[in-house]
Amino acid sequence: MAIMREVKNSCRYPFREEVILKERIAEREGVGSENILLGNGCDEILSLAGREFGKPGATIVASRPTYLQLMEYAEKQGAHVEWVEHLESMRHDLDGMLEQVVRRSADLTYICNPDTPSGTILSPESVEAFCRSACENGVVFLDEVYLELLEDFSEQTQVDLVREGLPVVIGRSFSKMHGLAGHRIGYAVTTPELVERLGKHRMSSPSYLGVVAATASLGDEGFHRQSRRFIREGRERFSSLLEALSLDYIPSVGNFVFHQTGIDIREFQELMKRRGFLVGRPFPPYDDWCRISIGTVEEMQKYEKAMREVFG
Amino acid sequence: MAIMREVKNSCRYPFREEVILKERIAEREGVGSENILLGNGCDEILSLAGREFGKPGATIVASRPTYLQLMEYAEKQGAHVEWVEHLESMRHDLDGMLEQVVRRSADLTYICNPDTPSGTILSPESVEAFCRSACENGVVFLDEVYLELLEDFSEQTQVDLVREGLPVVIGRSFSKMHGLAGHRIGYAVTTPELVERLGKHRMSSPSYLGVVAATASLGDEGFHRQSRRFIREGRERFSSLLEALSLDYIPSVGNFVFHQTGIDIREFQELMKRRGFLVGRPFPPYDDWCRISIGTVEEMQKYEKAMREVFG
Repeated sequence: MAIMREVKNSCRYPFREEVILKERIAEREGVGSENILLGNGCDEILSLAGREFGKPGATIVASRPTYLQLMEYAEKQGAHVEWVEHLESMRHDLDGMLEQVVRRSADLTYICNPDTPSGTILSPESVEAFCRSACENGVVFLDEVYLELLEDFSEQTQVDLVREGLPVVIGRSFSKMHGLAGHRIGYAVTTPELVERLGKHRMSSPSYLGVVAATASLGDEGFHRQSRRFIREGRERFSSLLEALSLDYIPSVGNFVFHQTGIDIREFQELMKRRGFLVGRPFPPYDDWCRISIGTVEEMQKYEKAMREVFG
Repeated sequence: MAIMREVKNSCRYPFREEVILKERIAEREGVGSENILLGNGCDEILSLAGREFGKPGATIVASRPTYLQLMEYAEKQGAHVEWVEHLESMRHDLDGMLEQVVRRSADLTYICNPDTPSGTILSPESVEAFCRSACENGVVFLDEVYLELLEDFSEQTQVDLVREGLPVVIGRSFSKMHGLAGHRIGYAVTTPELVERLGKHRMSSPSYLGVVAATASLGDEGFHRQSRRFIREGRERFSSLLEALSLDYIPSVGNFVFHQTGIDIREFQELMKRRGFLVGRPFPPYDDWCRISIGTVEEMQKYEKAMREVFG
């Protein structure tokens, strides 16, 4: 395995290795190296966008509840975030968002697709149409970190919009399908101009082993297939459990499931902590809902036991 | 070795492991966990300080030539950097710096001790006196990443000033003595208030393997002794070579040596690149000087051969 082989070199800075990783990513995405910005996880990419577009007086449009890294960073810079509530299906309200983008001349719109914590997904046609309209006003950050978990990923991704030169930032991560969360490697596919604008705020660089592990993982299609299958099977098993326990949940395409517990999340956290599990944070206003990441079969069996104790 | 043992867990985020690393560092530094801010290398810590103290209208005082990460980041935020030239001995001009700190009501002063590229060191008494005076006007960032290479490190470090509660940020790194450069782990020892002020700008988190490797390295005194000895011996061998070749150099206490070549650095880079070596960047106005990091014995033997070809 690439990590084992390269441990002896991990005393070095990965200057050359970063160039190679960017070239491999560019090839896979069908863009040039100048369209790729590496980050310490997609969190750094999101923060860089929050920094660049979240200046005082700026407006960011985002759906709620969703992944907050970009908006939290932007609010620290003094930006205003215009929140649009999810539809009842817990999908993004794209019409409502577009209305706000136009009304507020939004500097940036954030869409997480598939979304977290809900696990819902938007159709590629609706995302594409939204991006084309919103781009007339500002930048769209399309967080696709969970999209690679889909078998038909290539028909779902909006990377074509970047190839067209639209001001869209596609966020990706090696933390999900590639199983390299602890290595903190993510990247953006976007225009060279946006690579430059976001990149100038970078504070650090990725780790040597993270870079070589990510490079090795790019070619490992077998692992990707396995990774997708494990996650799908784990999600299906857990969904069956929720049905058996009569707990409402949102059908998810991510590596997690968002489900109702009927118990305040803080109290539920406590109940599960006593059983050895740290469960998801609160996602107001869904105060009695919980987001669970799918673990290994063994972990999920233990978790099922704990769930049956609490809800059985 | 800790890295090998933990590879299987590197798919996880290192939440618990970061807490443990901070506790171990705090113990070693003789401060509380609330005095420690982890970063992706000391570069992130320097950038965080550049972000927090480099706001438009702010002034930062720094000696030149030195390590530029903090000042480059601060200038991007709109800060003014007041440069004070090194003395002829290529040491910091502390009197000249203090004069500027007072005159400009500097928000932050940056001191790299031992300094890079020069490799010179200031006496602990002079640094302490400088910090006490400069702290009346603003914050002092004391970059001690090379200080751990000294046998009498504990008598040289200014960490006592932090214990007293002065607004001093001590920057440290696992990249030098610990030999973990590619893992990007650094930290600051400073007041809880400054941990909070710098920490709120963080964009990412360190890697799992970096955190466990750093934690393991903290207890490995044998490796530290060996690391110090290797660097000292390599530096001494390289200094002898410079003397044999009649090239002027600054006696260094770091893991690098700054020496005159008599050739413009860009031309020298080209000469060495043809021989397979990437040498230091320009440090104007020292345009015919070169900063060389000490490598392994083998690497340095090959490098000696290349040097003899060029200067022999």
